[in-house]
Amino acid sequence: MDEPMDYASAGVDIDLEGSAVASLIGALSRSVRPAGSPGAPVDLPGGFGGLIEFGENLLALATDGVGSKLSIATSLGQWGGVGIDCMAMNVNDLLCVGAEPIAFVDYVAVPKPDPAVHAALGASLAEACKRARVTLAGGETASLPGIVTELDLSGTALGWLPKGEAITGENLKEGDVLIGLPASGIHSNGYSLVRKIVEHAGVEYTDPAPFDPEHPHRSLERWTEGEATFGEVVLNPTRIYCDPVVDLLNEARGDASFSIKDIHGICHITGGGLSNLLRLHETLGWAITSPLPVLPEFQWLQRAGGVETREMYRTFNMGMGMVLAVESRQATNMLNWLKERMPGTAVVGTVTNDGHKVTHATEGVEFSHY
Amino acid sequence: MDEPMDYASAGVDIDLEGSAVASLIGALSRSVRPAGSPGAPVDLPGGFGGLIEFGENLLALATDGVGSKLSIATSLGQWGGVGIDCMAMNVNDLLCVGAEPIAFVDYVAVPKPDPAVHAALGASLAEACKRARVTLAGGETASLPGIVTELDLSGTALGWLPKGEAITGENLKEGDVLIGLPASGIHSNGYSLVRKIVEHAGVEYTDPAPFDPEHPHRSLERWTEGEATFGEVVLNPTRIYCDPVVDLLNEARGDASFSIKDIHGICHITGGGLSNLLRLHETLGWAITSPLPVLPEFQWLQRAGGVETREMYRTFNMGMGMVLAVESRQATNMLNWLKERMPGTAVVGTVTNDGHKVTHATEGVEFSHY
Repeated sequence: MDEPMDYASAGVDIDLEGSAVASLIGALSRSVRPAGSPGAPVDLPGGFGGLIEFGENLLALATDGVGSKLSIATSLGQWGGVGIDCMAMNVNDLLCVGAEPIAFVDYVAVPKPDPAVHAALGASLAEACKRARVTLAGGETASLPGIVTELDLSGTALGWLPKGEAITGENLKEGDVLIGLPASGIHSNGYSLVRKIVEHAGVEYTDPAPFDPEHPHRSLERWTEGEATFGEVVLNPTRIYCDPVVDLLNEARGDASFSIKDIHGICHITGGGLSNLLRLHETLGWAITSPLPVLPEFQWLQRAGGVETREMYRTFNMGMGMVLAVESRQATNMLNWLKERMPGTAVVGTVTNDGHKVTHATEGVEFSHY
Repeated sequence: MDEPMDYASAGVDIDLEGSAVASLIGALSRSVRPAGSPGAPVDLPGGFGGLIEFGENLLALATDGVGSKLSIATSLGQWGGVGIDCMAMNVNDLLCVGAEPIAFVDYVAVPKPDPAVHAALGASLAEACKRARVTLAGGETASLPGIVTELDLSGTALGWLPKGEAITGENLKEGDVLIGLPASGIHSNGYSLVRKIVEHAGVEYTDPAPFDPEHPHRSLERWTEGEATFGEVVLNPTRIYCDPVVDLLNEARGDASFSIKDIHGICHITGGGLSNLLRLHETLGWAITSPLPVLPEFQWLQRAGGVETREMYRTFNMGMGMVLAVESRQATNMLNWLKERMPGTAVVGTVTNDGHKVTHATEGVEFSHY
């Protein structure tokens, strides 16, 4: 291949998206709900959004869809994982402010309703509710033949936390320890590039994976017998981190040796890869000195697409789906607590104070803006 | 025209939709959140969904989209009303269980982001937040070129109410008085049929409306000068009933002469038209003896499409977007309270006990299932 592939050449214009969203936000005025009343917006130092007041508590909403991973699921007729993906994208975001997810609603848009597809989605959402430990509190199926050409799935999750206990990033400081939680696969970001690479490589999703998909800290959710197919690896559902993170938050708010104040930041590694860390603080930096092992599908994608290493880390999770920044004195305690519940969890680096940037053990992998 | 038009011939298969949704719901197991914990589902006698426990309160979620009304807005490049439509579809649903809407999140799916469209959506959502008196607590814009061919917009609203004060339909009884609230237009349902009729009639949305759109209890939101265009009538934003219904609920929970127990049922007239009333109770009936005046666009649509009257009332709101069923002894008090805040509000009928059906002053308009 002459030119290395990247996310922009896969048809996603991140700058255009950013300016479209800025236009939308720019048009919004302040909330009409006064401070202290239910629904009043909460301004957090870290600039996190989505939190509102509710008496002695805060409520948090997160809304997101599965994106172009859906197109692969649809082409294979395999929707068993997409409900889990949809749930994960939302509840994992809620965890980042220290909220416990409690309820979820789904929105399904289809050109034409198909009971078989809906049964598969229902089963997937039911499993997702179990993993995230939330109630499915409603949903909507819209038939929009003029607007969608195939299934779109999105959802909204609701979470809560006690007032004054939000994780805002304001306690982050140099020397904080970064704990990485392992990913189960590509999760739900970067699929425009995945599809472009796969098309270029001429691999079929129904073929056996063109690499050994074994990895100690994830299992594949299979729908075939025998050798794992490429499609099963690519569609492996996004990991939901409620277990163990909600339990860690509750333990920290209870009588564990560590406290909620020792958890300084939580980051969900989504589109933008490691550069997501820069959203947690305006000046501090992030040194990833001992990264989690890279999942084999990322190695294959990089090779097959001739993608630069830095671009890989800016697009994909590369094997780490969530990062906690914790007080160094409590890092071992929390690490052990987490490792017992999620094997593969490890210390991956520290918070630094020599510039607002992410650095990485791999040379050339450095980010100074999200 | 040889054959009268109806909703099914416009390409919407309600039975197929129902069976698809049933498949999805059938696959869902019970919630994993135990009774008494935040997020535990609340089973209401009337079978309403979406309510969850939260300490001394209940929280309610509603999720819905704008549907094919969006295609008309997109074809005209006029998105100023669709944020209001999206908000209305959700918050009006929350009012039906007696919840006060407090927050909203939007989900936008586009083939490609366009800052101008997003600025228009942002302005529309900002106005919607004011009308519904909620905080915009987040949102997501997804670029899905392979899945959507034009803008899709949906959203989720969050509301709350004190435990024990949900409006469930369990207090409904024969003789309850029905109070109708006027609609502002077609609202956000039945647009597949609207588009089919308009296409058949050969009317352009940019032409002056082929009828007098004046109506005492609604005003058109205009983007042209001079004579109102057909498009302005068809796209007139859905009425948001938070003001006056939230105030009525608060007044009833406070020291008004009427109490919350006097409000026995609230119905949002959406797809399915008057048959929505049947969802409120399993055995009682609904006699609409003095309907609100029909909006002129419905009269035109019926004529232009040769649509049967019964089909019109099963597809459109026909001029009444919300119905309250109240204790007869308090009906005059509540009517006067509402009329002062929303002119055009009137008593439209009573709850009956001779079969689970809706009857209407217009002969032939009768429904026995939703």
